[in-house]
Amino acid sequence: MPQPILTLTTDFALSDHYVGAMKGVILGICPKAQIVDITHEIGAYQITEGAFAIAQAYRCFPKGTVHVVVVDPGVGTARRPILMEAAGQRFIGPDNGVLSMIYAREKSKIRVISNEKYFRKPVSTTFHGRDIFSPVAAHVAAGIAPAKMGKLVDDYLRPAFQNPVQVGKRRWNGQVLKADRFGNLVTNFHTDDFPDLDRKTFVFRLGPHEVKVLAKNYAETGSGLFAIVGSSGYYEISMNQSSAAKATGCASESPVELAVW
Amino acid sequence: MPQPILTLTTDFALSDHYVGAMKGVILGICPKAQIVDITHEIGAYQITEGAFAIAQAYRCFPKGTVHVVVVDPGVGTARRPILMEAAGQRFIGPDNGVLSMIYAREKSKIRVISNEKYFRKPVSTTFHGRDIFSPVAAHVAAGIAPAKMGKLVDDYLRPAFQNPVQVGKRRWNGQVLKADRFGNLVTNFHTDDFPDLDRKTFVFRLGPHEVKVLAKNYAETGSGLFAIVGSSGYYEISMNQSSAAKATGCASESPVELAVW
Amino acid sequence: MPQPILTLTTDFALSDHYVGAMKGVILGICPKAQIVDITHEIGAYQITEGAFAIAQAYRCFPKGTVHVVVVDPGVGTARRPILMEAAGQRFIGPDNGVLSMIYAREKSKIRVISNEKYFRKPVSTTFHGRDIFSPVAAHVAAGIAPAKMGKLVDDYLRPAFQNPVQVGKRRWNGQVLKADRFGNLVTNFHTDDFPDLDRKTFVFRLGPHEVKVLAKNYAETGSGLFAIVGSSGYYEISMNQSSAAKATGCASESPVELAVW
Repeated sequence: MPQPILTLTTDFALSDHYVGAMKGVILGICPKAQIVDITHEIGAYQITEGAFAIAQAYRCFPKGTVHVVVVDPGVGTARRPILMEAAGQRFIGPDNGVLSMIYAREKSKIRVISNEKYFRKPVSTTFHGRDIFSPVAAHVAAGIAPAKMGKLVDDYLRPAFQNPVQVGKRRWNGQVLKADRFGNLVTNFHTDDFPDLDRKTFVFRLGPHEVKVLAKNYAETGSGLFAIVGSSGYYEISMNQSSAAKATGCASESPVELAVW
Repeated sequence: MPQPILTLTTDFALSDHYVGAMKGVILGICPKAQIVDITHEIGAYQITEGAFAIAQAYRCFPKGTVHVVVVDPGVGTARRPILMEAAGQRFIGPDNGVLSMIYAREKSKIRVISNEKYFRKPVSTTFHGRDIFSPVAAHVAAGIAPAKMGKLVDDYLRPAFQNPVQVGKRRWNGQVLKADRFGNLVTNFHTDDFPDLDRKTFVFRLGPHEVKVLAKNYAETGSGLFAIVGSSGYYEISMNQSSAAKATGCASESPVELAVW
Repeated sequence: MPQPILTLTTDFALSDHYVGAMKGVILGICPKAQIVDITHEIGAYQITEGAFAIAQAYRCFPKGTVHVVVVDPGVGTARRPILMEAAGQRFIGPDNGVLSMIYAREKSKIRVISNEKYFRKPVSTTFHGRDIFSPVAAHVAAGIAPAKMGKLVDDYLRPAFQNPVQVGKRRWNGQVLKADRFGNLVTNFHTDDFPDLDRKTFVFRLGPHEVKVLAKNYAETGSGLFAIVGSSGYYEISMNQSSAAKATGCASESPVELAVW
């Protein structure tokens, strides 16, 4: 068997022992696992942000990868752990929408994880990342069939997606999905839905700020705000070697309006 | 030989090259090592915090794991490097109490590391993480017997432990061990010593704040402070999707009083 | 083939999915890679800081290691990706000086990476870390010869180095290379060029602060500022368990004057 790849995406940050504990549990079950951190700095309890991160990252991983995603404000309540098969990969997390940006676009099979045989005992009420999600993922990475974990369901959570809403013949209301480390504002306007802006007249409005320039790279334009197609296919509002987030005061969930004509 | 697991716990943070340098040294000696970060964000020079992190994490790791713990304000002085065998695992760090929460509870054998054959030369006076702790750990992970590193000692540092102190028939003075990333206040009251609080009348006092509710999970109670048994068995003071640390102004070492009747 | 080691040094931070995406690409091409993070917290666009980090770290890694260094404000412009062979290791990054502290001191062969066969398609204009640097590095780690990637060049960027400048018979103007996590100020005065300060009378001046003491370890002196030979061979200005950066107000690029007599 090749070395299985297992990724982690959480809101645990890196200052506590929590992530290390999860990795210990994983390696105890699947010693050959290649464990990769996507990020542990999802904002605390920010399900949408977690959903965005894993939805951007999974396409870079080879088939067979097992992804663990733990942003889980409902830990210890009746919210269910789920296991999804999609795009030749497996995803494990709580049924709270954190996997929803993937099952909204990929053909998927989703199971409720109910087979306690694969849990770490005793199961705490506060740390399912260590006691349920990690051991189940490690067993799957080690070769246990997903079907052993629980039954297929189709009543998993389908959160309202933050897609742009059309509000006029040529106007849409969207929002910022994420302000990244460089201050780039990733919007929810995707090139699949809004192609060829470079051949049209358009304006992105972020509060009082109007952005009418589409750049090919960060260095192309001068000192102001511009739009650019980001590495995930979404339009981003950026500045060259400066923070568009700071310049506009925008952050995750800030409204962005697009008009095209 | 299976792939040996080697963990790192330091106060080096991740913004410098120090952690990367340690990993390079380790892989040069033990190329098959699975290196796992517990955390590198122990507060600078905070030995107690480092002791807490490794004491919480090691139980999740399989037998044979080698743990390196470097919180080392005395680097370059006469403080000794030590190697501990306990719980089927090995622990390497300075003799300053950073391993003391483990040897206080586990049967252990402790050696002073004196065999310079396994050091990286020349040994600097400022970075024993790279020059002593990492190479020794890597050699141990690669199969060198601990006995080769130095002689058994029993005069290692035994710091005053932060256990609760009984101050009345039904009253104890304890403290916060750590405020975690979510603002949960981990106290030093452990369920092993204070069982069954759910069947008693009790109050945790943190300054002017009184906590009289024991919750089964984070979401169970309303908007106020509550106690909960954390994933390590300690009582924690928490709030649902909010920070108990912020609400109370408490942090590591803040006093916590418990009265039971 | 032994497990190839591949390191990453970037200014991407850890809060986005970018680093995880790079690792996915690498493992898809070279599943056996041992991936090591040097640091991802290089200041955004700070080429000098990135150059310093990799130049300090690479000596700790075994021959054959492949290093990826992405601090790349010019991503998407005509700046070239390069591959350097030096010290028995391989280095991949943009031709903007980020590898210059290594090729200034090591015998090296440098190629422009032009063979698009080894790129991830389509190549975005904003994320060459994922689309060019990572896949090329993974192919090299997996055994593809560097010569397959492109032709040797000798017109790579040679930035003005921040070496101390002699301004008098016994006086030099230098600077701070980096303030590390502990507040140690790493200067650009190296023991190779300024040996034996312990046998001379000297003063380091940082603004109004004069440092005339050379310590053997952090704990040796009292409460004031002192100089110490850091783990990389540079003189550092430090305090015992306190931050010299805070005490002096100095940071990266702050001027440091040395007088010896």
